[in-house]
Amino acid sequence: MVLNEDRFFDPDPAVRRIARHLYGLVKDLPLVCPHGHVDPILFAGNEPFPDPARLILIPDHYIFRMLYSQGITLESLGIEPRDGSACETDSRRIWQLFADHFHLFAGTPTGAWLGQEFGELFGVQEKLGSKNAQAIYDRIQEKLGLEEFRPRALFERFNIEVLTTTDAAFDPLDWHGKIRESGWGGRVIPCFRPDAVVDIGKSDWKERIDDLSGAAGVDVTGFKSYIAAIRQRRDFFRTMGAVSTDQGVATPFTCELTEREADRIFQRALKGGASEEDARLFSGHMLMEMAAMSEEDGLVMQIHPGSFRDHNDQVSRRFGPDKGCDIPTRTEYTRNLRALLDRFGNTRKLTIIVFTLDESAYSRELAPLAGHYPAMKLGPAWWFHDSIEGMKRYRQRVTETAGIYNTVGFNDDTRAFPSIPARHDLSRRVDADYLAGLVARHVIDDDDAERMIKALAYDLVKASYRLD
Amino acid sequence: MVLNEDRFFDPDPAVRRIARHLYGLVKDLPLVCPHGHVDPILFAGNEPFPDPARLILIPDHYIFRMLYSQGITLESLGIEPRDGSACETDSRRIWQLFADHFHLFAGTPTGAWLGQEFGELFGVQEKLGSKNAQAIYDRIQEKLGLEEFRPRALFERFNIEVLTTTDAAFDPLDWHGKIRESGWGGRVIPCFRPDAVVDIGKSDWKERIDDLSGAAGVDVTGFKSYIAAIRQRRDFFRTMGAVSTDQGVATPFTCELTEREADRIFQRALKGGASEEDARLFSGHMLMEMAAMSEEDGLVMQIHPGSFRDHNDQVSRRFGPDKGCDIPTRTEYTRNLRALLDRFGNTRKLTIIVFTLDESAYSRELAPLAGHYPAMKLGPAWWFHDSIEGMKRYRQRVTETAGIYNTVGFNDDTRAFPSIPARHDLSRRVDADYLAGLVARHVIDDDDAERMIKALAYDLVKASYRLD
Amino acid sequence: MVLNEDRFFDPDPAVRRIARHLYGLVKDLPLVCPHGHVDPILFAGNEPFPDPARLILIPDHYIFRMLYSQGITLESLGIEPRDGSACETDSRRIWQLFADHFHLFAGTPTGAWLGQEFGELFGVQEKLGSKNAQAIYDRIQEKLGLEEFRPRALFERFNIEVLTTTDAAFDPLDWHGKIRESGWGGRVIPCFRPDAVVDIGKSDWKERIDDLSGAAGVDVTGFKSYIAAIRQRRDFFRTMGAVSTDQGVATPFTCELTEREADRIFQRALKGGASEEDARLFSGHMLMEMAAMSEEDGLVMQIHPGSFRDHNDQVSRRFGPDKGCDIPTRTEYTRNLRALLDRFGNTRKLTIIVFTLDESAYSRELAPLAGHYPAMKLGPAWWFHDSIEGMKRYRQRVTETAGIYNTVGFNDDTRAFPSIPARHDLSRRVDADYLAGLVARHVIDDDDAERMIKALAYDLVKASYRLD
Repeated sequence: MVLNEDRFFDPDPAVRRIARHLYGLVKDLPLVCPHGHVDPILFAGNEPFPDPARLILIPDHYIFRMLYSQGITLESLGIEPRDGSACETDSRRIWQLFADHFHLFAGTPTGAWLGQEFGELFGVQEKLGSKNAQAIYDRIQEKLGLEEFRPRALFERFNIEVLTTTDAAFDPLDWHGKIRESGWGGRVIPCFRPDAVVDIGKSDWKERIDDLSGAAGVDVTGFKSYIAAIRQRRDFFRTMGAVSTDQGVATPFTCELTEREADRIFQRALKGGASEEDARLFSGHMLMEMAAMSEEDGLVMQIHPGSFRDHNDQVSRRFGPDKGCDIPTRTEYTRNLRALLDRFGNTRKLTIIVFTLDESAYSRELAPLAGHYPAMKLGPAWWFHDSIEGMKRYRQRVTETAGIYNTVGFNDDTRAFPSIPARHDLSRRVDADYLAGLVARHVIDDDDAERMIKALAYDLVKASYRLD
Repeated sequence: MVLNEDRFFDPDPAVRRIARHLYGLVKDLPLVCPHGHVDPILFAGNEPFPDPARLILIPDHYIFRMLYSQGITLESLGIEPRDGSACETDSRRIWQLFADHFHLFAGTPTGAWLGQEFGELFGVQEKLGSKNAQAIYDRIQEKLGLEEFRPRALFERFNIEVLTTTDAAFDPLDWHGKIRESGWGGRVIPCFRPDAVVDIGKSDWKERIDDLSGAAGVDVTGFKSYIAAIRQRRDFFRTMGAVSTDQGVATPFTCELTEREADRIFQRALKGGASEEDARLFSGHMLMEMAAMSEEDGLVMQIHPGSFRDHNDQVSRRFGPDKGCDIPTRTEYTRNLRALLDRFGNTRKLTIIVFTLDESAYSRELAPLAGHYPAMKLGPAWWFHDSIEGMKRYRQRVTETAGIYNTVGFNDDTRAFPSIPARHDLSRRVDADYLAGLVARHVIDDDDAERMIKALAYDLVKASYRLD
Repeated sequence: MVLNEDRFFDPDPAVRRIARHLYGLVKDLPLVCPHGHVDPILFAGNEPFPDPARLILIPDHYIFRMLYSQGITLESLGIEPRDGSACETDSRRIWQLFADHFHLFAGTPTGAWLGQEFGELFGVQEKLGSKNAQAIYDRIQEKLGLEEFRPRALFERFNIEVLTTTDAAFDPLDWHGKIRESGWGGRVIPCFRPDAVVDIGKSDWKERIDDLSGAAGVDVTGFKSYIAAIRQRRDFFRTMGAVSTDQGVATPFTCELTEREADRIFQRALKGGASEEDARLFSGHMLMEMAAMSEEDGLVMQIHPGSFRDHNDQVSRRFGPDKGCDIPTRTEYTRNLRALLDRFGNTRKLTIIVFTLDESAYSRELAPLAGHYPAMKLGPAWWFHDSIEGMKRYRQRVTETAGIYNTVGFNDDTRAFPSIPARHDLSRRVDADYLAGLVARHVIDDDDAERMIKALAYDLVKASYRLD
């Protein structure tokens, strides 16, 4: 399993030769990470990673969802139940279980990322399996003890230009503060994600409003003070380096309420009497409010719709959220985004980046919208689609209608910090291969391709997220 | 039209070489046929097939739907109207009509299957056409007279390890009984398909309930006795070798009714007063009841949703069901399956195999669900998608999220017995080619590929359908 | 940027060799253009085209929608606001702006078409850019002054056998009349598009009914006279050479109203009191009425559903319709078309050509329907999908279920007259490449492929649109 230098490229020699050239132009460019879920405490504390299982497996729901699907309990993988009941704590046994089932990942992006992570980061060239599991554990563990494997050192070695975390509206951003105060030069910035204070349908919404009041120093008693508090938090996030917001909504439905209507819903929600329709309207209206604020303060607006969160109720209740049981749903954009685009779509003062988990919308709705409205850009292949075939489908379905310049480069969107270089590398390879196919078929010429690969790997993400 | 030994493989020499190797590992493995519609009377009676038209064309709605679409009447193809009015009975004339239009099948799976069936089974290497139609008819007819072309001999020659039929809940399974009593060693087993007694919206539902009462020896007067009768029939099917059930539902909607609610709907249905909503709820609840019974008795549960049956009312009224006029519909899984998966999804005691005719759900809903829930597996590319491009899309959209080990190998799902080897062969070729592409692009290595091709061709279907 | 003679072909040498051969068989066949939006005044007047910007950019919403999406105002591109306010009138400055942003079109069909249009029509082999913009302008401008660049000369040089325009129900077809009277041999025929008098939801519907009354010489006061007027107009269109009708509907919903019900809705609409549901039912019923008339008079029926017209309200109000802001929507066919197919689907007297902007329906609904109903054919990849990847997806998803003989060849569907040869050429290349792939993988043989490429390039469109 020595990493092949032509991996993920088309086997056709003509395409491969061009792909290799294009990839070579960008493989060493800095990594720009405008959206993800790495914990900032890593860089604040800069502690060594504890062990291979806690580094690689436990934080990565891509890995344990696959193992779980094959009948392996989450407890045996070291995922802690919320009620404090027992789970495996021996990292070597967890690692062995993972290694025993490593064949499950053949043909998946997790398999591809891990192959590179093992090979390039830890110098482990064999394929993980039952027999070599403990030996590989040892070799990784040994590295983790070294100074150069601490988070900040890896950040630098990975050549990360900027890393964006995702943070609740009421987050004090203490770790971000510590990082800044530390004098370390790594750029780790927050992203303002207000979901917990926007989704009035959630059972803990009122507690989160209290958190918001506390964080903003604004007594949130109605829609007006609520908006004021959000605005305050956005300002604070900006002072901490934020360039973007993010909203994970059930659907991208947008609508404009009067302030009075919005306040009535807000009051009902405060009293615990908001209906599902209230929640839908409030979510739709809050996308408008956030866009209005972005138009003012320049934060780039991201929308991640269409995930049915915590689909597996048993798992969620026992282990909490983000345990690999969020499932995509069909998502409509043409009608849903109309109110938003009608009011904000025709300006360049604002950037709205829309993502999807519903690939059928790429060519039907999203590329046509992004290929017309000046404010709207299309986010990269997301989540389950952040994979070799998924990215290919994205390029093939989006580019012809929207071009590449209405897209925004790559997002690694990960919690798994050490997988970041592998994810960017895979993306750069797939894009190089896609462009090489166009060159080999004489759809574009060499100059186009060279310009485009640089845009896809670096220029677009910098410009779109206003990171210049 | 000599069958090329590299057929359906990528023309790239690097991929083709690997594909050839992988295909070679599995091409002679036994055929496991866990789902299909072959008539068991073939093996009970073991009579010679009458003639080429009655063997190949008349039982195969893939063939006559295409001819019909081009203006050829079903009567002229020997399809008998239900009212006994005239249709063509001269098999030679039917065959000639088929041959005159054989070009319609170029590029379709029917064309590919027939090419292999003609070439390998009947030694007919030329392409069927107007001029050679009668000569080819003669050559096939001659073979059909031979002992080695009788159904049981073909079953053995085809190297079929097990063949599953599909049978109504009240079917006495007489032919299966005769096969067992005959002492012949071929394994032909039934599958329990209760649609006719579950779909309360059908006009003949009450008659089917009478059939169920009779078959089960249970007087079905309410929901409780209805469930008892179904349980009795499942037990009987199991004694006849069944390992699975199958439900063809309009949508995969699932819900849990109380026994009282279920009985109220059942009583309304008995009186002919059930509404459309009643039918939907009853169908949703019966998926839950069937899962509960499967958890007890171990029968693998299959769900085939989303076909609009008998879309062409004129054809259905004149010729009956299964005349090539079932049309797929958009199908939602994430919300619809939630009740079922919430209750049964987290166990491995039960296997629920879900199929789709809506390819947009592969990557969006089905692979994410099958890649998480231990009980759920994804059935292979179904019906219109059981084709070279259809299977490729299936692998490309499913594997990255669910891996291959949450899928269940191949189903031929056919009424056309002599096409079975061609169907399995095509599937094995397409899978070998898919894996070869991954090897050539260094996504997986040779060992992975060899393990995976065996899984796809043989191991997964055996394990998933509990045929070991 | 010299046009490569193998452009758009698979780089694999085996496939490319076959593609080249197949393409060679059809590249010089006449162009049959059964559906499009070229203005007939071009051929009536036969005036020289004014300048490059007015020839290439201003009539082509594919071009200016992309420029607009990148923040370039429509005014600066010479698109005239409806209120008469200022816009750029200097064609050289417009052209420069276009050239400055030409890289946006890399990888889009517009880029591919323009490459061929510049190269083959104007002998411009360099890629357009900021520096050579004015020089290229000069060279094109010079050509436009030549006699052989007038519309009729180009029509002949393009080897167009027939060109169909799209015309409102009340259009007097004066320009078509002038063309016929002129004695010029070019066949330019109208297509009957009644949308403006069918969509009772539009604010100007009543004015259009007055136009219809006037044109038909029938006082339209109720549903009966309305149908009589439409019938009169169809007859007139037929005398002017029309072979087809076209309906652009929000959805392909069809239903059968009684004449009384239809008239009640019509009367409500006349009084301005029709509801959205009225509009939906009326549209559904009018598809039935149009089909009934087609069954009588033989006009081929086209249905183009699923475009959300004028999605960008600001642009539409300022600049009018067809400004690149129509956005596709999800579209359902299986249930929606059932009433129509139930009544008209089983005959070959009638041809109903259905298009889609929702690619997820190709393999799920449309190919199954077209592969069964004798009256129904599937239109080619439409609009955003009329592109290299879009056409490939179309062939890959449609052919296996419907074959190629239930499809209707190519439509260029363009307003941009000089792009017509490039569009047909691209389509022929993509089809040749698709078939070459099938040959190289031994799915079809050489004879099949040669027959099929001719069908796709010429025979099918002639037969389907009854142009023989």
